[in-house]
Amino acid sequence: MSILIKKAIILTQNKKREQLHGDIYIEDQDIIQVSKRPISTEADYKIDGNKKLILPGLINTHTHIPMTLLRGYSDDIILQEWLEQRVWPVEAQIDSKSVEIGTKLGLLEMISSGTTTFMDMYFFEDTIGKTAEKAEMRSFIGFAFIDFGTPEYNPEKLVPECERFVKRWKDHEIVKPVIAPHGVYTCGPENLQKSLEIANKHDALLHIHCSETREEVYNVQKKYKLRPVGVLKKYGLLCDKMVLAHCGWITKNEIGDIKNGGAKVSHCPVSNMKIATGGYAPIPEMLEANAIVSLGTDGAASNNTLDMFDTMKFCALVHKQHRWDPSILPAQTVLDFATIDGSRALGIGKKVGSIEEGKKADVIMIDLNKPHLTPQHDYVSHLVYAARGGDVCTTITNGKVLMLENKFLTLNYNKIIDNAEKCAKGLTC
Amino acid sequence: MSILIKKAIILTQNKKREQLHGDIYIEDQDIIQVSKRPISTEADYKIDGNKKLILPGLINTHTHIPMTLLRGYSDDIILQEWLEQRVWPVEAQIDSKSVEIGTKLGLLEMISSGTTTFMDMYFFEDTIGKTAEKAEMRSFIGFAFIDFGTPEYNPEKLVPECERFVKRWKDHEIVKPVIAPHGVYTCGPENLQKSLEIANKHDALLHIHCSETREEVYNVQKKYKLRPVGVLKKYGLLCDKMVLAHCGWITKNEIGDIKNGGAKVSHCPVSNMKIATGGYAPIPEMLEANAIVSLGTDGAASNNTLDMFDTMKFCALVHKQHRWDPSILPAQTVLDFATIDGSRALGIGKKVGSIEEGKKADVIMIDLNKPHLTPQHDYVSHLVYAARGGDVCTTITNGKVLMLENKFLTLNYNKIIDNAEKCAKGLTC
Repeated sequence: MSILIKKAIILTQNKKREQLHGDIYIEDQDIIQVSKRPISTEADYKIDGNKKLILPGLINTHTHIPMTLLRGYSDDIILQEWLEQRVWPVEAQIDSKSVEIGTKLGLLEMISSGTTTFMDMYFFEDTIGKTAEKAEMRSFIGFAFIDFGTPEYNPEKLVPECERFVKRWKDHEIVKPVIAPHGVYTCGPENLQKSLEIANKHDALLHIHCSETREEVYNVQKKYKLRPVGVLKKYGLLCDKMVLAHCGWITKNEIGDIKNGGAKVSHCPVSNMKIATGGYAPIPEMLEANAIVSLGTDGAASNNTLDMFDTMKFCALVHKQHRWDPSILPAQTVLDFATIDGSRALGIGKKVGSIEEGKKADVIMIDLNKPHLTPQHDYVSHLVYAARGGDVCTTITNGKVLMLENKFLTLNYNKIIDNAEKCAKGLTC
Repeated sequence: MSILIKKAIILTQNKKREQLHGDIYIEDQDIIQVSKRPISTEADYKIDGNKKLILPGLINTHTHIPMTLLRGYSDDIILQEWLEQRVWPVEAQIDSKSVEIGTKLGLLEMISSGTTTFMDMYFFEDTIGKTAEKAEMRSFIGFAFIDFGTPEYNPEKLVPECERFVKRWKDHEIVKPVIAPHGVYTCGPENLQKSLEIANKHDALLHIHCSETREEVYNVQKKYKLRPVGVLKKYGLLCDKMVLAHCGWITKNEIGDIKNGGAKVSHCPVSNMKIATGGYAPIPEMLEANAIVSLGTDGAASNNTLDMFDTMKFCALVHKQHRWDPSILPAQTVLDFATIDGSRALGIGKKVGSIEEGKKADVIMIDLNKPHLTPQHDYVSHLVYAARGGDVCTTITNGKVLMLENKFLTLNYNKIIDNAEKCAKGLTC
């Protein structure tokens, strides 16, 4: 399949962060040509880029996609009550079918708001993988390790099932398996070490919640005489395969350990603020240390959207306010987090994250013909401070058009919305 | 003119915060009937409310609407440099024509994102008033007092021109004059007292920037041996006509003074965070003291949108994070700030701010058929935590349809966007 986009404004996000007015030609999965001069060729899709901004698809490095079903189900209560009395009782009812429905809803939302890659952590991982595969979405599906087991697997089944899961998906073109120990407070040394072994054996990524709340850090320190980052370091998990979600309560020394180990960070400002985790992830210090920072929405139960534009604005603003410094995290830096740095966090920096010839075609288009995107002094500023998911009109992942002028091509919109409503009604407790 | 909305979900925002499934009938400016049972009557507009959420129009109590032309013009630099080297040189070029163009762009954005009332503070006030009048937008137009004069008026002209302005607009049905001394640091006692005199004489509102930055508080204290709230109290401006913008750096005692004087607060969390004013307006303490809190976007140069949904989410989240308490400012409280409390702040609580028979018809409709608004566990949660301005499909102010299914009825969309682009290009320095 081939796609020709004509006369657009292109934010390449290449090393020079070039902005071009021109054409893009895509063939199969690949960006073949990016050119200031008109490209004349036939194509299966010819897309008019007039008044459109083209940029690399956004990369969401931490979410729990089936939890999209719990959007708005429970807000404004303290974390422990939220988990114990609201979220967990509902999750106990979740099965493969509801995971499929929630995943489809999440995919619909991500595609509609310009996300082309996501990393997940949840249960019924094969179901999530199959659903993402059908929708043709680039995805990293975390297989959850928790000492007391998951809704699908008893504790003793986790290792063999994880190996089976990893083998099943590791050679897939766009759906990749990830080993996801839930956290240092829910996975003991044995499961942490098993996770690492499987990751090393199959060259897969690792993903974990790390230092999200002060209570977590306190409890882990009490048990291990080490903080969560220290525990991960001790067991070898602070390695270049690891993506750490949150890192709201970490020290400068821990940033050094993260950087030296080659681990990456997924910063989730909206969820942290809504749950009121208190800490401010020391993002400016991470940048100083040259650690790789990416952005995650977290699940829709604690955000309450999967909108990466929303997350970009919150990211930029919360750190400015916290440091009393409006120059902290300028728009370009935050856009990098959501694009090229996201791809580096997932180990696919050479493949996606920027619009360059030879890279895979993960590309989105923004409709600039909107009051809130006028006038056009600065495109990067608009993306971070003014745009919203709803401004995305076209989403292309791996050379496949998933949404074209707000019409979904790989998902049945009405059916997914209906099923989600029905399923959500049955889930409440 | 009459409007009949059928089979909608209605968030009344009345005293009981009732949610109804039913019909609304509007005649001329008034809400005539709100009913769970079908209303059968002819109407000029019959609007299908299926999968639509109806709520009172949002009320933005602090903005500088012509500055919409400066959206994205300058970000990520410190306040003094931003004002002195970026904003003021551009503002020196602004004239009545560019104010008209910027106002129209701002109106387009507000109407498209569900705002039905705004309070402004800028220059060329008659131009803003006439432009709002033409668009049929409910508005409170602040006449700016600054000791060194404004782009339109020399210092000695301010008092007579303000009186003329107030007389011209005071009996207008929807465009109301406001006396707006810019701030305690830019208006000396004489202009503060003159402002109060005119407000009292003509029963008009007062609007001022108050304790936005620490530097402002420091400088005012040095000069007056009083903090800004103290200065306002001393000169009698802490009265029930006054709306104070920001209040980021105020004390508990000052909250008492504000409440006792009957003044209201316009909280602008997005602008405060983006400019990094440092302080956190003590909103929970204001609620404890029963002070009236409303929300403002501030100008698009420091936000960078006029989207009240965005402002609601930031408002809820920034205080949760700051206090380490997710139960602070629950969704319903924040929705109240943007509707019924906004109307009380502007002294029109009996007229608008809720959907009740006998009130003026300031009503908006949200299209719920969106992935990010599915499933529908909780409408109020969705409005604050998931919705965006782009989800508004219909906006009615004072019984007049300003936007119907995303088509503007009182403004020429293409012409405004084109003019704004052209004008903005000429403004840069």
